[in-house]
Formats: sequence, C-alpha cells, structure tokens
Amino acid sequence: MIRIAVDAMGGDIGPAVTIPASLAFLRGHPSAALVLVGQPSVLAAHAQYAQLQAHPRCSVVEASEVVTMDDSIEIALRRKKNSSMRVAVNQVKDGLAEAAVSAGNTGALMAIARYVLKTMEGIDRPAIATQLPNAAGGATTVLDLGANVDCSADHLLQFAVMGSALVAASSDRPTPSVGLLNIGEEAIKGSEVIKKAGELLRSASNSGDLNFYGNVEGNDIFKGTTDIVVCDGFVGNVALKASEGLASMIGGFIKAEFSRNIFTKIAAIVAYPVLKAFKNRVDHRRYNGAALLGLRGLVFKSHGSADAFAFERALNRAYDAARNNLLERVRERIAHAAPLLVAAQLALTADAANAVSLMPVDVPVSVPTP
Amino acid sequence: MIRIAVDAMGGDIGPAVTIPASLAFLRGHPSAALVLVGQPSVLAAHAQYAQLQAHPRCSVVEASEVVTMDDSIEIALRRKKNSSMRVAVNQVKDGLAEAAVSAGNTGALMAIARYVLKTMEGIDRPAIATQLPNAAGGATTVLDLGANVDCSADHLLQFAVMGSALVAASSDRPTPSVGLLNIGEEAIKGSEVIKKAGELLRSASNSGDLNFYGNVEGNDIFKGTTDIVVCDGFVGNVALKASEGLASMIGGFIKAEFSRNIFTKIAAIVAYPVLKAFKNRVDHRRYNGAALLGLRGLVFKSHGSADAFAFERALNRAYDAARNNLLERVRERIAHAAPLLVAAQLALTADAANAVSLMPVDVPVSVPTP
Repeated sequence: MIRIAVDAMGGDIGPAVTIPASLAFLRGHPSAALVLVGQPSVLAAHAQYAQLQAHPRCSVVEASEVVTMDDSIEIALRRKKNSSMRVAVNQVKDGLAEAAVSAGNTGALMAIARYVLKTMEGIDRPAIATQLPNAAGGATTVLDLGANVDCSADHLLQFAVMGSALVAASSDRPTPSVGLLNIGEEAIKGSEVIKKAGELLRSASNSGDLNFYGNVEGNDIFKGTTDIVVCDGFVGNVALKASEGLASMIGGFIKAEFSRNIFTKIAAIVAYPVLKAFKNRVDHRRYNGAALLGLRGLVFKSHGSADAFAFERALNRAYDAARNNLLERVRERIAHAAPLLVAAQLALTADAANAVSLMPVDVPVSVPTP
Repeated sequence: MIRIAVDAMGGDIGPAVTIPASLAFLRGHPSAALVLVGQPSVLAAHAQYAQLQAHPRCSVVEASEVVTMDDSIEIALRRKKNSSMRVAVNQVKDGLAEAAVSAGNTGALMAIARYVLKTMEGIDRPAIATQLPNAAGGATTVLDLGANVDCSADHLLQFAVMGSALVAASSDRPTPSVGLLNIGEEAIKGSEVIKKAGELLRSASNSGDLNFYGNVEGNDIFKGTTDIVVCDGFVGNVALKASEGLASMIGGFIKAEFSRNIFTKIAAIVAYPVLKAFKNRVDHRRYNGAALLGLRGLVFKSHGSADAFAFERALNRAYDAARNNLLERVRERIAHAAPLLVAAQLALTADAANAVSLMPVDVPVSVPTP
C-alpha cells in the first residue's frame, strides 16, 4: 500500500480544499492510504472531516503550527518545527509515507524538504518540475521553476538528468527528449552558462545518459518540440507566470466579449459545449502538482490557489511517482551520469578559478540551516 | 515632414509585405515621407511598386545586398555593407530619415544600428522594447527582449530610464510606472543582480528620475500592474516567446474545437462576431514594432513574420516616435539620471573587484566591429 502524507493546512484555502480532495483521492485509489497532517481543531470545523477520520485508509497526524504564505524561509524552518508542512515531510523521512504533498509556500516547502530529506548523492540543488500542456496534445515538463535563481551549466545538466527520470517514470517514453531553453536555436546564442550547458548536454547525450534535442526557444514549450525543457529557476518561473498571466487575460477577454450584450450572450449559449471543451483542454488544474526533484524522498507542490479538483491531481501525481519508483529511477540515472557530472563540476570550478571579469558575480542562494 | 527609411527587403516575406504596408502608411500619414531601400529589380516584380515609385512622398534608394534571417552578425556587419538594412540605417545617420524600420534579422539589425549610429552618452547597451496587451485594457512596455543576455544592475537601471522616456513619449503618462521583473514580490527574492537593481531603481525613484513600483512577476506583464517591465534580454525574450507560443496554442485549440463537427461549426457561425472581437482584442499584430533604444538615432524592428497590416503598425510606431521627439526625450532623461548611472557603475565595478566566488562568471556578449 502506498501512503501519501498530506499537508492538510497548506495553500490559500487550506482544509476546505485538502479534505474533499483527499476523500476523492481515496475513492479513486483503492490501494492508496493517506496520512493527513494538520491541526485537529481546525480540521474538525469541516463537514467532511469526520468522514475522512473514519476512513479505514486514512490516519491523522497532529501538527501544532502552520506555515503561512507570507512566512519567510527562516521562520518556516527555524521557528515552526511542528508545522503541518514539516510534519508531512517528516513522514517521508521516517518511512511512514512514500511521498508528501503540500499547497503551501513554495520557498518554505523546498527549504524544509531539503533540510529534512537532504539532497541526493550527486545533486547540488533540487529543482521544481511541472507539466504544461502543449499543442502536440501532450504535456511538456519544464524545470527548474524557481528553486534556483543562479544556475551553473552543471546544474542545468543535473536538471536534465532528473527531468528525464521523471518523464520516463510517468509516461511511456523511456528516452524523453530534452531541450535547452535559449533565445535562439543556433548554438552560438545565449549566455556563457547556456553555451557551456549545451556542451555538457551534448556529451551526456553521446554517452547515453539522456536524449538531447538541442536549443529550444520559449514558444517550443507550448509547441511540444521536446518532452522536457531545462532552464534556470528565474527564467522558468517568469515563463510559467507570464503564461499564467496571458491565459488568465485571454480567459477574461473571452468572457467579456461573450457577455457584452444579449446577442453575444445567446452566442455564448450556442457555443457553450465548444467553449467548455476548449476550457477543459487548456485547464491548468489538470497539470497541478510540481515535483521537487533531487531529494532523498518524494515531495510534490500543489499550486497555492488550487481547488479540490486540482489538489486531487497533485495527490494523483505523487501517488503515480511513488508507484513508479521515481526516487529509485532518479537515483539510477544520476549514478549512471555520475562520471559526467563530476567531470563537469571539476571543469567549471577550474574555469571559474581562471576567470577574470569586471562583471558583478552572482552568488548562489543558500538555504539557511536551522 | 518626417521621413522614415524602410528596409523593403527585410522579413520572412519581404517586398510583398513592405510595399503594400508602405502605400497604406503614406495614405494614412499626409505629412510623412518614406525612403524605400532595396534592390530595384526585386521590388519591380511587385505590382504595387510602380504606384509607390510614382508617389510624390516616396523616394527609392538602391541597396545591392540583403541580410537574410540566417546570416550571422559577422556576415551582416562585415560582408554586406551595402545591404538594404545597413543602407536604411545609414539614412538615419546621414540625417536623410528620422527613423529606420526593418523586419529583418534582429541580431543583425541591432549590431548594424549600434555600429552605424553608436550608443548614446551614458548608455552601455541598447535595448529592445516592445508593447504587450494587458488585461487593464492598455499595453505593457517590456524591455530588454534579447539584445543583452547578461545584464548587470546598472544596465537594468538604464533600461528603466529609457523605457520611461519611450512610454512618456508615446502615451499620455508623463511618469509611467516601472516594475522590476522578479520571481517574488518581496525585495529579498531573486538573484544578486536583481536585488542590486532594485536598490538602484529605488534611488532613481527617490531622485525623481523614474517612478519605480517595485518587483513584479511574470503574470504582472499581462495584468498591466505597471506601465513598464524591466528585465534582462534572456528572460524578456523567453517570456515573449513563451507567450507567443501559448497564444498560438490557444488559438489552435479554439479553432480545432469549433471545427470538430457540424454542430460546433454552426456554433462558430453564431459566435463569429464575438470570436472576431476577441481575436481583434488579442491581435499581436497591433503591437508590432519594437524600439531599439539607447542609440543616437531611431530604429524600429518589425516581427519577421509580420503581414502588411502589422508592418504598417511598425511604420506608425516609428513615425510617432519621430514626431514625439523620442530621441531627445531619451537623451534628456539619461542626462538627468547621469549622476546616478555613473555612481551605479562605479559601485558595481568596486563590488566586482572585491567579489570572490567559485561560480562561473558570465561574459558580456560584445558585438564585433568590422
């Protein structure tokens, strides 16, 4: 039986979303169990909690604190050691659950997961990976989405290896293609980090560690040119949020145009089934549930504003990852690519020691240890 | 009379787009003149060329070469000194036109414009600025969009000052608001470059050089949170192209859903006026025409795949910029902010000299000089 630990308090809405989603998840997965983590007094205020409490495949673990969306990483990590988020991740560490899911504060979740579970051998920095729908009818997996704002070339290589393991574990593609996000298709374009990353990815492709397609541009994410798109967390986060903003603007425009007057409202009624099919096709809720990769345990992040349908998808994703041994697959891939990863790091360290520049130097963001 | 030099050969389509667009532009602007630059033998093959040639406010300047979309910057700059792109920019340098417009290769255009016109006093790197529609019913000006892949904090400050001049010159907002693109609203998030840029922008705001709103995220571009969004060229280019990709995917989905069967096709007919109004509202062609800012002359870049309607918009934009003295406005703003810009550069150089890091160092991309 696969057990998923749920941070029942996390997200903009909290238990009103996590409780019904948990019930629906248990209904849909007869061989899954849930460990619901939260403040019993708060949970008890919700009608369906009793049902969940009585469920034979659900146990409740008490946590006395909650990490809020505004809490700094320091507060979440050092001052709230008994938060629902932390206790949920502890379940994974202690082997009481195969994966943890939270809709809480992303920075706090990554910091807690990293501190509690530690990174995998061979991984410097965990990454956040999510799926976005593409015009090819599938989904493109993009990473990193914000865990790392300053990435070196070898970090991008690590992301590519981890992303390949994720897609291989969750689809029917054993050797998914990897694109390196750049601002032009020619290898010559882009920053020095990107050029170096391109070389590393080509080497990895030659040694069979991954299937490197080459450079891709922003539009290729939605074209579905490759199964995976690798980028640093700053760029990935901006691309993701810009896309969310555009989708929301377009949705708003469609609504406004169809509610303009009585004629457009009639048109809306006639077009309703088509608009509904369209809406379903681009429904971002279906893609909810980002994987935190590179840790010694499975953790999934739901969008903070997820509704019960979307949160259930994140639970499904965590369940599938556990069932398909994602952790073991990432570990194997990283181990296989280890000689290359080590060589890349040594080469980059040597480069950096020789580099002379008047440009301001980026300092990697480090997670404080409590 | 304001004269615009048109690279008639540039773009994916070339004269079949630039000739009709030029005619339409002249019709719409009774006090404008055009300098059409291209290969007369190629232009003559187009039906409307004779009309343009006979137009009292259009002159033709011959150029023997064409920069292709695949030409490297080196080829465009060193081997094709008589290209339509170069000759069009020369018109601006020689005072024969107030602005140049090209739909050709962006990298080549920027390199040629920079080499021929030189950068303005106080500007290290020119930037590319474009408008994107926003949910607030207006447009957000975003820069840089790809001219600079590795930006330091003082470059971002220069972009903010130039972008403010552009928006002030082309709208009714004398003190447009500026947002710094980041991955979180708190000042603490983002890379060291972004943090430093935030400090510089706040100082500039305090000294009245611009109206700094604070950090914004990717979705704020389409929300219309600020009039201007400043970012480095890599991030800006990815955000722009990802948005183009998403818009194109959504357009494809709408089309596919409405052509599914006879019932959805009937729905499409009923909904046609609404869909058309919607399409018009998000029509990216209306926003065509990116400004190359920071040069000692006005140059505008049209999208390579622009049709005649879109190319005409780019001509309009160049015309408006010339009419509203954009060049002088940018120069004034930069001069006013000069003490701050110089101080920022000195501070960053000192920081860099003191910095110690094992991270690979980004090298600024430099345009080769022929």
